[in-house]
Amino acid sequence: MKVIYFDNASTTPLDSRVLDAMTPYLTNIYGNANSTHSIGRDAVRGLDDARATVADILGANFNEIYFTSGGSESNNFAMRGSFFARGDRNKLIISSIEHHSVLVTASELEKLGANVIKISPNCQGELSVNDYKNAGLDDCFLACMMTANNEIGTIEPIKEFASTCKTHGALSFTDCVQGMGVLDINVKELGVDMLSFSAHKFGGPKGMGVLYIKNGTPVSPLITGGSQERGKRGGTSNVAGAVGLATALKLSRENLNEKVEYIRSLRDRLKNRILTEIPNSTVNGSKMGVPGILNVTFNGINGETLLYNLDINGVCASMGSACTAGTIDPSHVLKEIGLSQEQAKSSIRFSLSSNNTIEEVDKVVEIIKKSI
Amino acid sequence: MKVIYFDNASTTPLDSRVLDAMTPYLTNIYGNANSTHSIGRDAVRGLDDARATVADILGANFNEIYFTSGGSESNNFAMRGSFFARGDRNKLIISSIEHHSVLVTASELEKLGANVIKISPNCQGELSVNDYKNAGLDDCFLACMMTANNEIGTIEPIKEFASTCKTHGALSFTDCVQGMGVLDINVKELGVDMLSFSAHKFGGPKGMGVLYIKNGTPVSPLITGGSQERGKRGGTSNVAGAVGLATALKLSRENLNEKVEYIRSLRDRLKNRILTEIPNSTVNGSKMGVPGILNVTFNGINGETLLYNLDINGVCASMGSACTAGTIDPSHVLKEIGLSQEQAKSSIRFSLSSNNTIEEVDKVVEIIKKSI
Repeated sequence: MKVIYFDNASTTPLDSRVLDAMTPYLTNIYGNANSTHSIGRDAVRGLDDARATVADILGANFNEIYFTSGGSESNNFAMRGSFFARGDRNKLIISSIEHHSVLVTASELEKLGANVIKISPNCQGELSVNDYKNAGLDDCFLACMMTANNEIGTIEPIKEFASTCKTHGALSFTDCVQGMGVLDINVKELGVDMLSFSAHKFGGPKGMGVLYIKNGTPVSPLITGGSQERGKRGGTSNVAGAVGLATALKLSRENLNEKVEYIRSLRDRLKNRILTEIPNSTVNGSKMGVPGILNVTFNGINGETLLYNLDINGVCASMGSACTAGTIDPSHVLKEIGLSQEQAKSSIRFSLSSNNTIEEVDKVVEIIKKSI
Repeated sequence: MKVIYFDNASTTPLDSRVLDAMTPYLTNIYGNANSTHSIGRDAVRGLDDARATVADILGANFNEIYFTSGGSESNNFAMRGSFFARGDRNKLIISSIEHHSVLVTASELEKLGANVIKISPNCQGELSVNDYKNAGLDDCFLACMMTANNEIGTIEPIKEFASTCKTHGALSFTDCVQGMGVLDINVKELGVDMLSFSAHKFGGPKGMGVLYIKNGTPVSPLITGGSQERGKRGGTSNVAGAVGLATALKLSRENLNEKVEYIRSLRDRLKNRILTEIPNSTVNGSKMGVPGILNVTFNGINGETLLYNLDINGVCASMGSACTAGTIDPSHVLKEIGLSQEQAKSSIRFSLSSNNTIEEVDKVVEIIKKSI
């Protein structure tokens, strides 16, 4: 049975062109990028090129790109790093619909003495910059607003957020894990102080991420040790991973608009057919979401059973973040936008990519109808 | 020019059999190991098998193996994690010849209030368990003693160290980055509470490591977020990396004794020829070192110039840890075993693996002689 993969917000296949670009660094260019001999120099060239590519695409400076092991490390780096460098300010403002790597880290920092304030979204998952302002940015060391929600896809007003934070002297940080690869992100245009993302969400390798840190931003390292990453992140550089991340990012920007249009058309077809053909179904999130994410509540239906039925029919989807799989609590995001526990447990996230087809969409609709 | 690679303590080439084992996870088995559908289940099977292999080889339980992004993350995890879970004890004891990921992390914890004590080695780099005891283990939350020194290869008395720590209620941690792959490490026999290592030091991929944490050891996570690694290390699992690490570890144990004998014979030939044929050369470290590391002081010679000469003749070696490359300070390890600044700057580390040959050894000796 050919699998229909509608779980691209969870992870994506490694693009074969990305693997091709990585292969030299998994074979003959094996040096430690910190070594000064010929084998090391070949490695550092790969690492430098990757960093330059990423910086160029994001509108950042070369030395503002920090390679990490992924989105979670980047988020911990940004939050813990600014906490330990916070000076007199002690307030941390986050939204209530952040990814667990932000939510849990905020709780940990609260235990260490930070004053944590959570901003709730409206019923479409939209966050208001005014709410951040009203929470008091003047004694806030860091404010976090995700670029796009991983469960319902809602895109947040990051540019306005960053400029408001700046006015009040608070650092602005955005978890861009779900935005990178499908949005035309430019850090200078956004104006944020820090931005994180992960390679495997857009055809890159797992175990590889980036934290953009604007020059001059006070952030302590999360992983101390050697002189790598300008002394901000110890550990032998994963050169193959960095090259893979940079290649995937570059590929994601090729014909970005066309791909986004295509993914959106698939998602809209899925949405419209579900809303029309499946009684009591409703869609969560705003219209202005990332192109690939569709979160549907099948009212009165047990989501887990539906997911299981989809799976045995070869359809991969999810009930929300894969990172929380295994926990029995319903999605915190759906609760925050006003769904009941019952409704949250009846909700499924479909996440599409440009690898998907209209035939797959139609087949999935038929399988849902049969399952229900 | 064929390169002679004598810098295996810095990093090693990825074994082609390891890459073969990783390839399915870099292509068709691309799932998120936390996803519950078919594509995710294939991934989690790979991750579970890798964890079981590692646990089995090390004599650990399945759930005592935590995958990380490398040795530096593992060392930070062990040290910061036990600091934040330390209870009433506030003393941290380390040796003065640890890797920078331990040394710098200790300094950071000192800034956060830990009472850090450093134990110096003897002139061969040997640490004394009695010195740890005399430093006061009764109010110590964590004691760190590296398994083998990365610059001079000296092997430390970890078993005795662990049992002494236990007697005094202090947690014992060993950075085993230079021991794994060449020593027959069994965590239960050693009796340590925590042990770290990195895959790329023995033919595995970069960006992948392990922290062994004995069940019941109080350690806070370094990277919080999702439920991965039993809630102790958030972030989408790098399944290909874990499979690569496990495969490399397994391969390293095949004919371990024969390989160690072979590497040792190469190193001894290199050592004997250098000591005999190059005037004023002396060897640093104890006789009981790991098989592949040879640290030589070429008294009166500028080490950097020699290294440069070796490099232009196709020989890769180093002046110590690659992690500190770019800094101008001479090796802290050589200073600690009593070398003068002058002598430290005249010292070169050659690190051999079973991929090297007797012909390479002889050629390197000739190149050194010519250079000097």
